[in-house]
Amino acid sequence: MTKVRVIIAGPRGRMGREAVQLVERTDEYELVGAIDYKYDGKQLSDIEGFQHIHIPVFGNIEACLHTVQADVLIDLTTPEVGMHHTRTALLHGVRPVVGTTGFKKEDLQELEQICHEKELGCIIAPNFAIGAVLMMKFAQMAGKYFNDVEIIELHHDGKLDAPSGTAVKTAQMIAEVREKKTQGHPNEKETIAGARGADYEGMHIHSVRLPGLIAHQQVMFGADGQTLTIRHDSYNRASFMSGVKLAVDTVMKMDVFVYGLENIIE
Amino acid sequence: MTKVRVIIAGPRGRMGREAVQLVERTDEYELVGAIDYKYDGKQLSDIEGFQHIHIPVFGNIEACLHTVQADVLIDLTTPEVGMHHTRTALLHGVRPVVGTTGFKKEDLQELEQICHEKELGCIIAPNFAIGAVLMMKFAQMAGKYFNDVEIIELHHDGKLDAPSGTAVKTAQMIAEVREKKTQGHPNEKETIAGARGADYEGMHIHSVRLPGLIAHQQVMFGADGQTLTIRHDSYNRASFMSGVKLAVDTVMKMDVFVYGLENIIE
Amino acid sequence: MTKVRVIIAGPRGRMGREAVQLVERTDEYELVGAIDYKYDGKQLSDIEGFQHIHIPVFGNIEACLHTVQADVLIDLTTPEVGMHHTRTALLHGVRPVVGTTGFKKEDLQELEQICHEKELGCIIAPNFAIGAVLMMKFAQMAGKYFNDVEIIELHHDGKLDAPSGTAVKTAQMIAEVREKKTQGHPNEKETIAGARGADYEGMHIHSVRLPGLIAHQQVMFGADGQTLTIRHDSYNRASFMSGVKLAVDTVMKMDVFVYGLENIIE
Amino acid sequence: MTKVRVIIAGPRGRMGREAVQLVERTDEYELVGAIDYKYDGKQLSDIEGFQHIHIPVFGNIEACLHTVQADVLIDLTTPEVGMHHTRTALLHGVRPVVGTTGFKKEDLQELEQICHEKELGCIIAPNFAIGAVLMMKFAQMAGKYFNDVEIIELHHDGKLDAPSGTAVKTAQMIAEVREKKTQGHPNEKETIAGARGADYEGMHIHSVRLPGLIAHQQVMFGADGQTLTIRHDSYNRASFMSGVKLAVDTVMKMDVFVYGLENIIE
Repeated sequence: MTKVRVIIAGPRGRMGREAVQLVERTDEYELVGAIDYKYDGKQLSDIEGFQHIHIPVFGNIEACLHTVQADVLIDLTTPEVGMHHTRTALLHGVRPVVGTTGFKKEDLQELEQICHEKELGCIIAPNFAIGAVLMMKFAQMAGKYFNDVEIIELHHDGKLDAPSGTAVKTAQMIAEVREKKTQGHPNEKETIAGARGADYEGMHIHSVRLPGLIAHQQVMFGADGQTLTIRHDSYNRASFMSGVKLAVDTVMKMDVFVYGLENIIE
Repeated sequence: MTKVRVIIAGPRGRMGREAVQLVERTDEYELVGAIDYKYDGKQLSDIEGFQHIHIPVFGNIEACLHTVQADVLIDLTTPEVGMHHTRTALLHGVRPVVGTTGFKKEDLQELEQICHEKELGCIIAPNFAIGAVLMMKFAQMAGKYFNDVEIIELHHDGKLDAPSGTAVKTAQMIAEVREKKTQGHPNEKETIAGARGADYEGMHIHSVRLPGLIAHQQVMFGADGQTLTIRHDSYNRASFMSGVKLAVDTVMKMDVFVYGLENIIE
Repeated sequence: MTKVRVIIAGPRGRMGREAVQLVERTDEYELVGAIDYKYDGKQLSDIEGFQHIHIPVFGNIEACLHTVQADVLIDLTTPEVGMHHTRTALLHGVRPVVGTTGFKKEDLQELEQICHEKELGCIIAPNFAIGAVLMMKFAQMAGKYFNDVEIIELHHDGKLDAPSGTAVKTAQMIAEVREKKTQGHPNEKETIAGARGADYEGMHIHSVRLPGLIAHQQVMFGADGQTLTIRHDSYNRASFMSGVKLAVDTVMKMDVFVYGLENIIE
Repeated sequence: MTKVRVIIAGPRGRMGREAVQLVERTDEYELVGAIDYKYDGKQLSDIEGFQHIHIPVFGNIEACLHTVQADVLIDLTTPEVGMHHTRTALLHGVRPVVGTTGFKKEDLQELEQICHEKELGCIIAPNFAIGAVLMMKFAQMAGKYFNDVEIIELHHDGKLDAPSGTAVKTAQMIAEVREKKTQGHPNEKETIAGARGADYEGMHIHSVRLPGLIAHQQVMFGADGQTLTIRHDSYNRASFMSGVKLAVDTVMKMDVFVYGLENIIE
């Protein structure tokens, strides 16, 4: 079987490092190049942590695509650089799997158009943790049958924002299908402000912060005599890699543009 | 709006009692008759607990369908009686919603054939707890992406069988889509027999029994750096009624035979 | 062995009914009388639900103690009546086990004084669920070693107050021993108000309300690399009876006044 | 305030590395020496990972105690070496905090005797995770009031033994106080062998193994209408360090021998 030839942009980042390891230990994949402006003309083996990986590093995507033949670009850089990388890869017939967030709406439209013209697959995913993506998808499905839902998200106490982005995204997805309802007793009273959590269209979100915790979320649905709970626990960054692999495998069989891992999960 | 006219077979059983209350408190439904061989010719109000419900009770389904006009039959009796009720209802143009289990394969085929000929909906569901049905459906979906799964089911200590029927059903559903795998370390050892639970095609099932517990199940999936957990807690029999309502509403819009609530859930 | 002779005040209430059943099914106990102003001079068998229990009912405690010999009074009435019952019982040499709350401080002092003089045991407990009492006790013990703690309490959506009384009581007990600390990141921001829950001396309390739920509480402690969680689930009122039994057994061996079940638990 | 002067034996092990960091970042502690036979006469800064820590390393404890003045020895080596270190430290007036397991009974008796004669504190602890120690202590306390208990322990799928040592230790501790009982329905049947888990004196232990998981244990008690759950989640080795710190602080105030962190926790 021919191996899938992979370029990785952003190999020094935390996600990038995991991606290099993923490609190296997957038999069906072959790492053919990396893009890193700081190491132009060098080898991955020159970067700390990759001592045994003798693959050329290029300072920009044009040089890379000019030199090596590739099937897939895994891009884990920034939105600005990522847009340029993704567009260029597609124009050269290379399928992008992109983990950066923050693309503008017009960027996404442009990429979708190029995919359509070139008949090439492209996957952009803000979250590669399959478990988290399934949690959100299941929560949305359950939201059709249960009007009452509360979200508890639990993170380490170094986190600044509450609620977490994933919790708000989950609530949005449920709100799209859920029959509107203000939950709790109509006359309920908070004897200490905040007890009932954040209100998002009548649903409640609770943010727990404790040292020791990593990243966890629990979506609870209730109805007469029963509760249904969907929970995702993320222990470390390795959790993203099964999603990256799924995306690489899927992008090779697709000829359309997809935003969000949930759209390639059946 | 015209109300859905409902007949209930088996009104004295535990599920039957809940169903009578469901129909009575639902504005769009109208209870028009009940079937109970012990109370032929009497009224529901003659049965303890239904003092204020003046609805005729019939000793058999033929007499009932001969006398009252109905849209739906909710049958909560036994497999033998249930098959006769379901067939007869369909032949009279009444759509059945059936909560009894244990139908034979040839019975199901016969009912499917009648539905097809009559262009009538019919729903037979072994489990009406929507939360439990969603748990099993989600577990099956997740089984495509996670090869490693363990099921923990927890029940009161009066339960005789282990694992529970729902746990085995869940494992079967996951096995249909999961890539085969023997879980755990290849050299793992039980220092006390049974520690690793029941083995179902390489998946493990653990049965917890404690006084106080009611009926709970947790399906846990694991992969590098993450776990995904789907849990259903059933606190009492009222949990079945939202499923019965969904089935009644759906059967009115359908003209096919459906086995299992999971098949009317999107 | 001589049986413990028990009088129950308030047999028609929800707790009272459970207590009657507890005494009836416990071999070492003997129900000798009941106090219920509505059934003066009648028998328990005259009250619905107690058809087979032929025990005299008295309209007031004086008549009761004048007629029957008893060791213990289980009082499940109101604070006003309860105080009168408790004092009178002690003065007649009968040991009270009292489940009513709302006694005034001076009442408690008076009762303690009588116990001291009479050398009689007396237990007043606002919460008889041993599991809940242990949860609070353990939470307080853990609070000495973990400064970071968040409480999640979960109840049915018919509950009016948030946080629950038990959650506030738990936080108070932890605050007595915990080194003061404002939890979470010093710069944390709520992007939706209330996300971080109620603040009680720097600890956070989250109140979840969903239909289906009954009464649950989870106390979570966090530190570098670990979390410790103590959870109590209450499914129904039967949960109080093991505490009542413990109190009756203990009060017979004691000659002091005790407030709170936690003080007879080692 | 005078700082506590600390020697660490075994600085290259996983626990040892954490301990070096703990001492370095704690203001009240001062690292004065290390013991490592491979680095005799060198500095900690010669060992990878400790580049900036200029502390002398000694090949054996005698040389170390001869050269530096210390208050506490933290020993994280092996049972054989550890016994020699502990004895020698005590004879030199240095208080040991020992994290190695596997000491023989006669060794422990000898150490207890030396502590008594020297009036010096010494703490040997097989488990330094305070959360785990509290979980076991609470489980034992609850075992006095609840006869029905099941233990669920969950670990990564690289673990060889089932049940875990902590689960068996927990069951032993509960068995010491629990009224004997064979749990579950007397006629319960396993339709798949192992479903009911490992049987330890009538209590049941269930071992879950999944990739992604780290080290978790849940002890569940049940009684009429309620359950009480105590759970510890260990995410990484840092969880041991709060226990080491507690032991160092406590050993300075003690003049007796203690085995097990649970005995210095109130």
